[in-house]
Amino acid sequence: MLKPLGDRVVVKMCEAEETTKSGIILSSGSKEKPQIAEVIAVGPGGKVDGENVEMQVKKGDKVVLNKYAGTEIKYEGEDYIIVKQSDILALAE
Amino acid sequence: MLKPLGDRVVVKMCEAEETTKSGIILSSGSKEKPQIAEVIAVGPGGKVDGENVEMQVKKGDKVVLNKYAGTEIKYEGEDYIIVKQSDILALAE
Amino acid sequence: MLKPLGDRVVVKMCEAEETTKSGIILSSGSKEKPQIAEVIAVGPGGKVDGENVEMQVKKGDKVVLNKYAGTEIKYEGEDYIIVKQSDILALAE
Amino acid sequence: MLKPLGDRVVVKMCEAEETTKSGIILSSGSKEKPQIAEVIAVGPGGKVDGENVEMQVKKGDKVVLNKYAGTEIKYEGEDYIIVKQSDILALAE
Amino acid sequence: MLKPLGDRVVVKMCEAEETTKSGIILSSGSKEKPQIAEVIAVGPGGKVDGENVEMQVKKGDKVVLNKYAGTEIKYEGEDYIIVKQSDILALAE
Amino acid sequence: MLKPLGDRVVVKMCEAEETTKSGIILSSGSKEKPQIAEVIAVGPGGKVDGENVEMQVKKGDKVVLNKYAGTEIKYEGEDYIIVKQSDILALAE
Amino acid sequence: MLKPLGDRVVVKMCEAEETTKSGIILSSGSKEKPQIAEVIAVGPGGKVDGENVEMQVKKGDKVVLNKYAGTEIKYEGEDYIIVKQSDILALAE
Repeated sequence: MLKPLGDRVVVKMCEAEETTKSGIILSSGSKEKPQIAEVIAVGPGGKVDGENVEMQVKKGDKVVLNKYAGTEIKYEGEDYIIVKQSDILALAE
Repeated sequence: MLKPLGDRVVVKMCEAEETTKSGIILSSGSKEKPQIAEVIAVGPGGKVDGENVEMQVKKGDKVVLNKYAGTEIKYEGEDYIIVKQSDILALAE
Repeated sequence: MLKPLGDRVVVKMCEAEETTKSGIILSSGSKEKPQIAEVIAVGPGGKVDGENVEMQVKKGDKVVLNKYAGTEIKYEGEDYIIVKQSDILALAE
Repeated sequence: MLKPLGDRVVVKMCEAEETTKSGIILSSGSKEKPQIAEVIAVGPGGKVDGENVEMQVKKGDKVVLNKYAGTEIKYEGEDYIIVKQSDILALAE
Repeated sequence: MLKPLGDRVVVKMCEAEETTKSGIILSSGSKEKPQIAEVIAVGPGGKVDGENVEMQVKKGDKVVLNKYAGTEIKYEGEDYIIVKQSDILALAE
Repeated sequence: MLKPLGDRVVVKMCEAEETTKSGIILSSGSKEKPQIAEVIAVGPGGKVDGENVEMQVKKGDKVVLNKYAGTEIKYEGEDYIIVKQSDILALAE
Repeated sequence: MLKPLGDRVVVKMCEAEETTKSGIILSSGSKEKPQIAEVIAVGPGGKVDGENVEMQVKKGDKVVLNKYAGTEIKYEGEDYIIVKQSDILALAE
């Protein structure tokens, strides 16, 4: 089982949804396509980079995040993405 | 329904308005064309990056934002953009 | 009407003035030509990026700003530029 | 023996696991593949860059980190990686 | 008349002085040649980027600044440069 | 004799040790090989960049640092490297 | 006479010393060769970028700094370099 540290969140992508080809230009200059994921595990939050972070998502939430945010990991045969909560844009309800 | 986190705002672009071709050079070096959008949903604000953010826009507001600010998302057949409130330049009344 | 948020200011450029061709190299490496603009609308200031910003310009002020600072917008047939107050270098009286 | 300073952690990689080829694009633009490591030694934490860091991993923990995070070192014939705790994404239990 | 805002200073370059060709490499990677200027007007200082700035130069001071620091402006037929006080390296007495 | 300022440490490299060719990619994108050095002199610490730094290494310590961290200097016929304490990854005991 | 502002220091290079060709790679990626200089004038210190800086060098000190740190200036026929105290690595005694 994966237990994220700090303000990190383990998510599992839902099947890719159709998206308008986006010409998004982020400050980092990187292109990215948004997508929906399900929250699998949530870190404890608390002090992160000197700030007190309160976790605002919970296991089972559907969330919108940027496709390339975070780090992909295959663990026990499953594919997950570990993101910081700040990479989660919105809840999809 | 989309519920933005933190200081994020979900907007829906109004039809593109005529704009002077702009040779804007931002500090990030990226070109961008401003445009008008309507606010669909507003995050709770509160602590964001260690700062207390008070939301200053509300559902239904017409706002000026930078065309490429934020992240495009197609959700339930509709196109939205999720931006941070700091990417909203002005209210258009 | 445009109501800027935070520490933003809506200005209207005055006719371009003659300027020495400048070889200015800013930290961002971007070249820019200064120019004079008139203040049309001023944001409320207050907390911006965690700092309390007090607005120091008012409607009608003539100000010096960098040509490419901020974002151009055509609104109700008029061309404006929305800048942060920190992009205003000086008052021209 | 290696005694990490501050918020650093000495880890030993576990054998490479199969991973989905990932097209991760991080803000730094660098590609990286996640992997599992075992914690060998943990720094004292405390003031790091002006923030008080509490160590959340302990000797023997299995952790997920980014393959290229930190610095490889061969010491007394063994290969280690020294990472900052903030480069540890999750505990793998 | 130009009234600089915040920690800005309006200066007028003195005639270029001979300088050793310098191979200076600044953190920004930009080359620059130092030069002497006369202070024409000084901003009020006070809160700038959340810091309280006290102005340490006054009208008439001769100062050393970096040639390309700040922004050139021609105003009422005169050439000026508007710099932040932090771009002033030293007083030349 | 060299007396480092602030949080700097003067070290003398031990003979290069064998290292696995490392494909380390740091956030700065720069490659570096770790190595062992002996501490020759330690700065007083104290306020550095507004943070209070307590020195955690002492003369004679063997430390792990990044090969290219800091600045090489030949002084009185000897080669030294001056690093900030934060460039010291671990004590090697 | 040059009176540096804030945490700046005016130095005069001593004759170049022999140095090992260094392959130093700094975080800024810029190459630099260390060298010895003599302190000619020292700024008052005090609030610099919101931090209270106490000057730790005095007129006549021999210091180690990075060759390309700071700004070269020819003043009254002499060559000087103006550096921030933080660019001074060590005292050479």
